[in-house]
Amino acid sequence: MKKQPTGMPKFRPKKPLRLSRHPEPGYVVGGRVWLAKDGELYMGWGRAILLERIEQYGSIAAAARSMQLGYRNAWLWVRAMNRLAPVPLVEKTTGGPGGRHSRLTEEGYKALREYKELRTRFQDFLSAEKE
Amino acid sequence: MKKQPTGMPKFRPKKPLRLSRHPEPGYVVGGRVWLAKDGELYMGWGRAILLERIEQYGSIAAAARSMQLGYRNAWLWVRAMNRLAPVPLVEKTTGGPGGRHSRLTEEGYKALREYKELRTRFQDFLSAEKE
Repeated sequence: MKKQPTGMPKFRPKKPLRLSRHPEPGYVVGGRVWLAKDGELYMGWGRAILLERIEQYGSIAAAARSMQLGYRNAWLWVRAMNRLAPVPLVEKTTGGPGGRHSRLTEEGYKALREYKELRTRFQDFLSAEKE
Repeated sequence: MKKQPTGMPKFRPKKPLRLSRHPEPGYVVGGRVWLAKDGELYMGWGRAILLERIEQYGSIAAAARSMQLGYRNAWLWVRAMNRLAPVPLVEKTTGGPGGRHSRLTEEGYKALREYKELRTRFQDFLSAEKE
């Protein structure tokens, strides 16, 4: 049994408007935050999870499967991120133990960390709105 | 020529990922914010625009048309907001000059104002992230 990635809740791609599994009484402030470049989506919630899973599983295909994302979409996301980033975020490796064949670059780790930090600040904003 | 509602930019329902009409160099932080109740969407960007247009045009049908939203969707949004709010946000009127037949209640104005204030604080958050 592979362990779940930590630090981020489970990715639920199919239910974008299902805002809470355990509805709270009263109103809840929800939101999303992303990074764009030249009017194109660069980094968001799903892409950050994808990067995290690529690091975990060592392959785009396995990462995509783990989050019920089609391989083609995963590949297009990676391609877009690599194109929009200053240097690529994901690189191929030449085989190795366990059949790993993709991994994050230094820039990939940095982009992931920065997005998660942004998201934490955003969660703080939402929490402050909640009361 | 009806005047455009003020205070909110033009609603563009068809291009959710088109983040900027005039791409800026570098990365831009974007986002959305909404209110939910019992796990259901209560108030968001599109619904706030709809309320504003209902007030402007005096009818759900005209409001929907003005933002290229199907009448059925507009009606469902209004129904959901009315159900989730403490008291209805939109009420029918009994005819009157200009054929107006829907308007915001006091609670409707309040909900709209509060969402716009939330959105302003969120824009401030995004601006602070931008630099």
